[in-house]
Amino acid sequence: MIWATSPACTELETHVLDWLVEMMALPEKFKSTGTGGGVIQDSASSAALCAVITAREKATNYRSNARGCNGELVAYASAQAHSSIEKAIKIAGIGSQNLRLIPVDSEFAMQPEALEKQITRDREDGLLPFFVAATVGTTSSNAMDPLKEIGELSRKYNLWMHVDAAMSGTAAICPEFRHIHRGVELADSYCFNPHKWMFTNFDCDCFYVADRSALIRALSILPEYLRNKATESGAVIDYRDWQIPLGRRFRSLKLWFVIRHYGIEGLRHHIREHVSIAQEFTRWVEADEKFELAAPVPLNLICFRHKAGDAFNQELLDRLNRTGELYLTHTRLRDRFTLRMSVGQTNTTLAHVQKAWDKIRSVASEIESEGWDK
Amino acid sequence: MIWATSPACTELETHVLDWLVEMMALPEKFKSTGTGGGVIQDSASSAALCAVITAREKATNYRSNARGCNGELVAYASAQAHSSIEKAIKIAGIGSQNLRLIPVDSEFAMQPEALEKQITRDREDGLLPFFVAATVGTTSSNAMDPLKEIGELSRKYNLWMHVDAAMSGTAAICPEFRHIHRGVELADSYCFNPHKWMFTNFDCDCFYVADRSALIRALSILPEYLRNKATESGAVIDYRDWQIPLGRRFRSLKLWFVIRHYGIEGLRHHIREHVSIAQEFTRWVEADEKFELAAPVPLNLICFRHKAGDAFNQELLDRLNRTGELYLTHTRLRDRFTLRMSVGQTNTTLAHVQKAWDKIRSVASEIESEGWDK
Repeated sequence: MIWATSPACTELETHVLDWLVEMMALPEKFKSTGTGGGVIQDSASSAALCAVITAREKATNYRSNARGCNGELVAYASAQAHSSIEKAIKIAGIGSQNLRLIPVDSEFAMQPEALEKQITRDREDGLLPFFVAATVGTTSSNAMDPLKEIGELSRKYNLWMHVDAAMSGTAAICPEFRHIHRGVELADSYCFNPHKWMFTNFDCDCFYVADRSALIRALSILPEYLRNKATESGAVIDYRDWQIPLGRRFRSLKLWFVIRHYGIEGLRHHIREHVSIAQEFTRWVEADEKFELAAPVPLNLICFRHKAGDAFNQELLDRLNRTGELYLTHTRLRDRFTLRMSVGQTNTTLAHVQKAWDKIRSVASEIESEGWDK
Repeated sequence: MIWATSPACTELETHVLDWLVEMMALPEKFKSTGTGGGVIQDSASSAALCAVITAREKATNYRSNARGCNGELVAYASAQAHSSIEKAIKIAGIGSQNLRLIPVDSEFAMQPEALEKQITRDREDGLLPFFVAATVGTTSSNAMDPLKEIGELSRKYNLWMHVDAAMSGTAAICPEFRHIHRGVELADSYCFNPHKWMFTNFDCDCFYVADRSALIRALSILPEYLRNKATESGAVIDYRDWQIPLGRRFRSLKLWFVIRHYGIEGLRHHIREHVSIAQEFTRWVEADEKFELAAPVPLNLICFRHKAGDAFNQELLDRLNRTGELYLTHTRLRDRFTLRMSVGQTNTTLAHVQKAWDKIRSVASEIESEGWDK
């Protein structure tokens, strides 16, 4: 897949990803007109892997690509970061023991003081800190890592900062939610998934870098059968060098349709609706003396539980999912079983969520009546 | 993406990939009913990366995943292998200097004696040979590496043998072409791309392993929010642990439609047609005193050139592609510029290829008349 394979496929992707930088007020450096640029990946896992590889090569002056890893590199993420960060660290030959999981505060956000302490310790041990993943909306509880503080530490200690905003990033289309991105101008790379909360069919992860030359240098290959005049002119983008696979689909087309169909105002309308419905659900949980919230609800994911304990909540989850009427997932927060309700699908309305809450309460009552809460 | 996300998505994939093992007479060990299994990847690049990671972990007793790479591992591929092998080796933290490109014979196939010599030398140097990629139909010239000889060496020296049959593998649907797979029973992993020569839309790479437990152990992650009863029962497949990303699409559906639509006989008909057309083209080249073949034509890729030299052939390529009537790519074989014609698209007939050959000859005459061949 070279530019000439389908110029439109490449050009539209560049264009639509530049649009999103403007729509979400992301840093200008992520635009193709500057030093950076965006590319569609299949998922946030692959975006994280590309970020790790590029950071690895930059930190070792491209020696790892040539000679392989040697065990000196250390990466950081919060203890609540998505498992894809650990997977990327393993794939890249860094080793999971060299990924430090930094403690979180009472709201499940990374503690920058703990991060700095760990970086200092690793440097004293002769290791090379090279990468930190910060999350805007963790999978488990939608926690927001402090990008500004983490970004300043990554500048101070010369780390690559990757921001994973897989679900929550979309919220930045609405000006009132842009506080979630405070400090993102310090990021080296960033991703969010329109396939999660922007009405776009899977797969579609938008991955941005501030310095595209570093990414390309880390991932490019150029055998004779891929050589061509357009590439050699330097005037076109070959996205094969921005990702793991060589081939690509025309994924920007679906994103273009979504943006053209809803418009910025339409997208804002739905995002606000989803956040408003989730906040309404939050109030219902708070008002019910048998249930409690397990984490703050900054946007559209509610972590909650029945007060009767882990076994009760597991039973509640299983029975609810068996009804076929709704599907909840779970997590563990402070080692307690926690239910998760996410509001973000295209056609979800308050009525659906009200019905889900009624069902949750009625099934809980049924289990209570059997004596499970004793 | 867990099994429960969409049981049909997983179950149909397992089923269709088992079908293909039977249709192509691949080793039984690649079936899900044995110790192995197949999974759809986006491309042969990702399949190669999964093979390299699994081989790396097996060779280091899963130490690389934990502690990272340490520079001791060495991989092998022929000098004609696809660039994706080198890319995978770099991504996995092995280092491109630790990928040995083994010399090829006069037909561009890997020389097993040269491979054994290199393995022996590396072992004497205290290195750990762990992986060899053999190609069934190289991208550049459709060369066939000797799987049996390479496989026997990989058994002898405990290497993981990955077979990349991206385009040519499809031919094995026809019994008369199965000789290309002689020795594949010695492979640890294998891939071919129905999106290349089996009428299936991109992306669709079928990747098989003989020992699925090694693959899963190398790539699995299990955070709390992915835990579930079906997975823990061990009775279902979670394909997220068979690939780099976490999410997946329902790609087996398109493959199922292709197989159901054409049937085995229909697929055989088209494959035979394509090979027959390519062989006809080969005879036209041989019969024309101004042109020559640049490599053997075992199946459907013809490497040829005008006898007037590199500059002439580059000009011929450029003018032909500018007409918009056909599109040829090129490669270099024995450092000489070579044109490539591939016959494999759904609706390609002899008439199209005849028209292409007429155009190639007429544009060549035009260039000759301008004195380029002097």
